Amino acid sequence: MDYRETAALLRERDDILILTHRRPDGDTIGCAAGLCLALRRLGKRAWVLPNSDATALFTPYLEGLLAPAEVSPAFVVSVDIAGSGLFTAEGERWLERGVDLAVDHHPSYEGFARESCVDSGRAACGELILDIVRELTQVTPEMAVPLYVAISTDTGCFVYSNTTPATHRAAALLMETGIDCAALNKRHFRTKSWKRLKMESLVVEGMELHDDGKIALAAVTLDMVAALAAAEADLEDISAFAGQIEGVETAVTIRELKEGACKLSVRTGAGLNATRVCALLGGGGHAAAAGCTVPGTVAEAKAAILGAIRKVQRED
Amino acid sequence: MDYRETAALLRERDDILILTHRRPDGDTIGCAAGLCLALRRLGKRAWVLPNSDATALFTPYLEGLLAPAEVSPAFVVSVDIAGSGLFTAEGERWLERGVDLAVDHHPSYEGFARESCVDSGRAACGELILDIVRELTQVTPEMAVPLYVAISTDTGCFVYSNTTPATHRAAALLMETGIDCAALNKRHFRTKSWKRLKMESLVVEGMELHDDGKIALAAVTLDMVAALAAAEADLEDISAFAGQIEGVETAVTIRELKEGACKLSVRTGAGLNATRVCALLGGGGHAAAAGCTVPGTVAEAKAAILGAIRKVQRED
Repeated sequence: MDYRETAALLRERDDILILTHRRPDGDTIGCAAGLCLALRRLGKRAWVLPNSDATALFTPYLEGLLAPAEVSPAFVVSVDIAGSGLFTAEGERWLERGVDLAVDHHPSYEGFARESCVDSGRAACGELILDIVRELTQVTPEMAVPLYVAISTDTGCFVYSNTTPATHRAAALLMETGIDCAALNKRHFRTKSWKRLKMESLVVEGMELHDDGKIALAAVTLDMVAALAAAEADLEDISAFAGQIEGVETAVTIRELKEGACKLSVRTGAGLNATRVCALLGGGGHAAAAGCTVPGTVAEAKAAILGAIRKVQRED
Repeated sequence: MDYRETAALLRERDDILILTHRRPDGDTIGCAAGLCLALRRLGKRAWVLPNSDATALFTPYLEGLLAPAEVSPAFVVSVDIAGSGLFTAEGERWLERGVDLAVDHHPSYEGFARESCVDSGRAACGELILDIVRELTQVTPEMAVPLYVAISTDTGCFVYSNTTPATHRAAALLMETGIDCAALNKRHFRTKSWKRLKMESLVVEGMELHDDGKIALAAVTLDMVAALAAAEADLEDISAFAGQIEGVETAVTIRELKEGACKLSVRTGAGLNATRVCALLGGGGHAAAAGCTVPGTVAEAKAAILGAIRKVQRED
């Protein structure tokens, strides 16, 4: 279904429950909140299913929208959920009952719902939800806030390669409702926890550069995490950190999982295939980003991944 | 003059020299390159005056466009230059001869040119140049690259509060020429020098947090700069660094200028007036960002600024 047909279907329905994916990000939360507010503006009963994984960064957008425990919906919609394995514990019950409509932008969407509105050309599912919402009603500032969060967070604030002209046009539309995008940007893109900054500082201290700075080896050890009492939120996307160094083409981030086991994330430029490197250590992924888990200490993991990189370089 | 009248004026002229401001940023360089390419596409002779301050980050955009030493223009245009004090050494000669047209977006534009096209509602001067270029000719990818650099760099990639719906629409238009915005974003927003990362690491190590983390005192000492052999480019905008810490409302960055003299940058939230704080130490600025230069060591500067903050807090 396209977004117009999807809007027409939603217009016919009532008592609508909206589901978000596990480990929810700004896109799934923003989509759920924006759609829920639009449906309520049409006079419908609509709720977002509570998601116990949601962090304090995103829970404020769901305030007043959460479904009560005894909710009994007539129509269930999933937003930004690509597969059945991505439902939350709370959401699985509704997956079993059957999802009536899935709205998504992942090319890997699995087709678990009765009806679906999927467009993998959208940078964020929020772009698609915005189109649906605009078919249903006027976009209010209350709806624009979560939808802006959806679109901006999924594109790193319009910096990632998934950003399209349509992404910018959607942002323009949402801004025109008068919302304070600068405050949202400050919250989501210009704020780091003190623990995160200290962790980055420790990562820099321990960084190894090889091959005239073309290869960077970063490590997050159990000792570092313990010393800072860092939470998972403080480590989010830390594997992108080393890749920002000027001149670095291959960025490896080693995360010590427990004594004697390390998870490696490998990001490469055009000259090296990350999947071939990680395959040598039993892992996999994409050409530009892959991963593997290896036994041993951080030092052993460094030696192993450097060896794998050298081997793939020699074969090319 | 509005952008249409400005385009009409440019259409009548030939042998056009374009001037950029001292310590040039992406906006002035991008505007100059984009306008120069558009004028050349109309069959005109047009050049950008070389700017010896330009860093390697921006010089590639001027390749093939630079004026020869013996240039003898019939029409001189300044882009993104707000005042006569912002001309480069090379540019001052043309200021004396007289600037025919200024295109600018600064509210403080001084009116030094015969004709001017100034719109302070634009986040970047590049937005205004884009409108002028579109009146003159079709926007090619070659023009779109520097204009995208102009607009994105002046808004921190659409994150700063100056970003408007028109900024996003301009970005959408430029992207539609097919340019690789992701590569430009990587270059300008997702890359840091190794020395910069090490400097940030040292700043974190030495950071002082006061008042339950509401006040951050960051310092860049002569020893730190010497230890890393850091250049000015590695320190750019370092005074914004401490302000990103979650919970920090007042961020002070102390830069040791020489033995016994420190420059302070103070950024504050709504609760404290930065100018009132800095005025107590002989400085000035805006309500949310101000500065001053004080004698003494870094430790003495810290004590002085904390004292000034306390005094203003008590008076409120």
